[in-house]
Amino acid sequence: NRPLALIAGPCALESREMALEVASELALLSDRLGIGVVFKGSFDKANRTSGGAPRGPGLDAALPILAEVKEKFGLPVTTDVHESWQCARVAAVVDLLQIPAFLCRQTDLIAAAARTGRPVNIKKGQFIAPWDMEYPAQKARAAGAAGVLLTERGTSFGYNALVADMRGLPIMQETGAPVIFDATHSVQQPGGRGGASGGERRFVAALARAAVAVGVAGLFLETHPDPDAALSDSATQLPLRELAALVETLMAFDRLAKSFTGSS
Amino acid sequence: NRPLALIAGPCALESREMALEVASELALLSDRLGIGVVFKGSFDKANRTSGGAPRGPGLDAALPILAEVKEKFGLPVTTDVHESWQCARVAAVVDLLQIPAFLCRQTDLIAAAARTGRPVNIKKGQFIAPWDMEYPAQKARAAGAAGVLLTERGTSFGYNALVADMRGLPIMQETGAPVIFDATHSVQQPGGRGGASGGERRFVAALARAAVAVGVAGLFLETHPDPDAALSDSATQLPLRELAALVETLMAFDRLAKSFTGSS
Amino acid sequence: NRPLALIAGPCALESREMALEVASELALLSDRLGIGVVFKGSFDKANRTSGGAPRGPGLDAALPILAEVKEKFGLPVTTDVHESWQCARVAAVVDLLQIPAFLCRQTDLIAAAARTGRPVNIKKGQFIAPWDMEYPAQKARAAGAAGVLLTERGTSFGYNALVADMRGLPIMQETGAPVIFDATHSVQQPGGRGGASGGERRFVAALARAAVAVGVAGLFLETHPDPDAALSDSATQLPLRELAALVETLMAFDRLAKSFTGSS
Amino acid sequence: NRPLALIAGPCALESREMALEVASELALLSDRLGIGVVFKGSFDKANRTSGGAPRGPGLDAALPILAEVKEKFGLPVTTDVHESWQCARVAAVVDLLQIPAFLCRQTDLIAAAARTGRPVNIKKGQFIAPWDMEYPAQKARAAGAAGVLLTERGTSFGYNALVADMRGLPIMQETGAPVIFDATHSVQQPGGRGGASGGERRFVAALARAAVAVGVAGLFLETHPDPDAALSDSATQLPLRELAALVETLMAFDRLAKSFTGSS
Repeated sequence: NRPLALIAGPCALESREMALEVASELALLSDRLGIGVVFKGSFDKANRTSGGAPRGPGLDAALPILAEVKEKFGLPVTTDVHESWQCARVAAVVDLLQIPAFLCRQTDLIAAAARTGRPVNIKKGQFIAPWDMEYPAQKARAAGAAGVLLTERGTSFGYNALVADMRGLPIMQETGAPVIFDATHSVQQPGGRGGASGGERRFVAALARAAVAVGVAGLFLETHPDPDAALSDSATQLPLRELAALVETLMAFDRLAKSFTGSS
Repeated sequence: NRPLALIAGPCALESREMALEVASELALLSDRLGIGVVFKGSFDKANRTSGGAPRGPGLDAALPILAEVKEKFGLPVTTDVHESWQCARVAAVVDLLQIPAFLCRQTDLIAAAARTGRPVNIKKGQFIAPWDMEYPAQKARAAGAAGVLLTERGTSFGYNALVADMRGLPIMQETGAPVIFDATHSVQQPGGRGGASGGERRFVAALARAAVAVGVAGLFLETHPDPDAALSDSATQLPLRELAALVETLMAFDRLAKSFTGSS
Repeated sequence: NRPLALIAGPCALESREMALEVASELALLSDRLGIGVVFKGSFDKANRTSGGAPRGPGLDAALPILAEVKEKFGLPVTTDVHESWQCARVAAVVDLLQIPAFLCRQTDLIAAAARTGRPVNIKKGQFIAPWDMEYPAQKARAAGAAGVLLTERGTSFGYNALVADMRGLPIMQETGAPVIFDATHSVQQPGGRGGASGGERRFVAALARAAVAVGVAGLFLETHPDPDAALSDSATQLPLRELAALVETLMAFDRLAKSFTGSS
Repeated sequence: NRPLALIAGPCALESREMALEVASELALLSDRLGIGVVFKGSFDKANRTSGGAPRGPGLDAALPILAEVKEKFGLPVTTDVHESWQCARVAAVVDLLQIPAFLCRQTDLIAAAARTGRPVNIKKGQFIAPWDMEYPAQKARAAGAAGVLLTERGTSFGYNALVADMRGLPIMQETGAPVIFDATHSVQQPGGRGGASGGERRFVAALARAAVAVGVAGLFLETHPDPDAALSDSATQLPLRELAALVETLMAFDRLAKSFTGSS
């Protein structure tokens, strides 16, 4: 029942400058609102809809950026891994390794992430039931993970659509893992005839409020100084300047939610 | 942005005694918590999974019970209608007519309900998108409804399962109609090999909190003195004695939700 | 294991002339191909997406048209009923009463249809599992139906979309009822922001072939002399002039399917 | 419009003896029925529901078995790859590389497979629309794949359930790739509270007949001498002794399907 935490940052680490700009804003927000923030940025968008879409700076260029964010702003950092060999290198810098949703059943990747000694945040696949996230969590624990988090980010609902099932939050909490709600990916419209994922940013606040009222350990929110110009997920990332107001609102819901004990 | 209202009562009007017991409790709750309550009870479960399942007292027996609830406890009352000819008779007693979810596209039924001069509460079909509830609302308005409410109660999600999409609440609000969240039917597991609908009562509170945090005009909750003995929906109705604590919690979320203006 | 039958005709009985044109073509097709054909036409589109959409001629105008089709071309006829009071009147003319998919759980309507002494064709709701269609069939039998048919027409799959699950055909056959596949409604895209249902006619033949290969008693196909000008379901009705070639193909698949015994 | 091909074999390469037994049977079937057969066996079940479930022999032990099958029976062979580094080693032996459904958007894996000079068979993810499989195919082609096949194996449909949408077959054919229907995975019930995937073998034949009637280049069928004793997918693999009768039936449907030109 600890206060809400925040995992936030841009979808892709588009440049050192942009990463530092976002991190600086997040550090201010953390100080001003008194909320723990983990900086998130991807070094590689390894599963873009289209092969020709930009993928990010790559591991070699990204790790120094994440290290600089950590050192300069004192924020813990996280990023996602895609193949087993990346885990040890990434863990040398980041505080938390993230397993992408599509990869939540890849035993070797989870085990490699867990063996780094860092905690692992496993995103729930769009194709998996919340009660089945117990098994990826077990895979991480069996490989010695320092900690396991589970993140809801929407479930397949027909084609090119997701739905965020709020029942999944308490169900995943039954595994004993802290549960995070990813409000920006939950409004994604995956794929689509245009060769890119769309989404509906206008529902981010509503879904985040809902999840916090149900009760979560933290929120995951992608944010960008100028989402329309983002190299990925431009339809869903939150404008950086709107983040603080939303987080402040959500913290109020979190305090209320956690003031009640028991199930009602 | 008016305070949360409550539509509550037993699934079926099983007997006069039981109806009065529930209504008495609801009247006390309304007074004590300062929340507007509409008493709900069905005269006919017209779409039971199995033909042999109990259906309720029928129109002739039920209307005097509803009238007595209204007169004795001062609560407005509502019930659901299934064929056009029932509307005028029902409207002579009830304050609000409810269109069942399966029937939300039956033009004649909606029009007959609307022509009574009573407001109409149309439940969103499990098979219809929230943005398409604009059309049933228009049908009611075109027939002169005194008011239209729309109620979310879950959407088909594979077989024998529903999911409550919280995005549906703001989407339906764009019609201008007050939106109600039906938390007990949203946890239903329709049908099933056993010839009856099941459900998961343990998620009622979580979904209700989520909906209120998103922002709704009211909640719909079925409640029964002894759900395990209920003639219908025994897996989802709330025990009457647990209702007040839940409603008090939800009113706190409602006040918080409505203290914020705008979208965040 | 009797040969494939066909239920076909226009969505709405738009006019006497059009009905006779379609029926004449169907009678020729029946003779030439040696397939049993039931003429289908709706007197009322009682659940249009929008209240303002055309609904058809109504019961009084439609029954003489259906009677004329029957008398002039020797085809049995069917139509769909929406409220209980219509059943007896309709049954005086038609050979088979159809329960619409949205209404497949309305106990009184099914019972009223069954009590006419005519066989009843119950469409599977978009919201119901195929194994739960056993209960509507039981309701009809318990009320004395002369026979029960069950028709697959697609299941909700996200918003504004259906999917035709071919497993539903053998599952529904386990009730003992002949199972019909409705290939034109199965490609419907229900509702949609434009206030009407769309659909993808280009998949009708593929789904019909699939269903016949799995094994069905009959096919349901809506057909219109000029679908683009149809008052309803213009996106899914088949052009009348294309019907014979499709049916001939499907009869070949049917003969092959029924030449195998057992499950493979 | 070439005759139906078959990709078949056990889910996991459980042992050399078992692989040779299955391959021997498949070689006989190929000769007797005149159907092209590719032998399939997995060296690693890399995404088991539970971490403790058996995974197969591993790459080092499996490649000699696949090479022996190829040499002894003259059957082309295929297996699935899970991380990029495996592709070159696997391609030294197999004739066709398979990309697992969960990994169908992993750009590097597809590119690594394509760069081997072997054709690549990409399974459609349970979370992706058929029209979006155009992008994985493009990724493979852009990396120089010798050929691309796409395989349907079911789409998420609520929790722990899949549905096989027959429309996906012609939609994926629009990419120009031959389309395979995987009838044994399409009847899978993924995950489940018991920590393993279940399934309904009894629908394999029905779905396979449906797909062949729609029109496919080939079928994918997992088969095992004793499915109940299989280390994986025991609920869905076909008994080896039942395979020939099913394939013979399907070849008859294939000949009929391909005797028609055009869309009907």
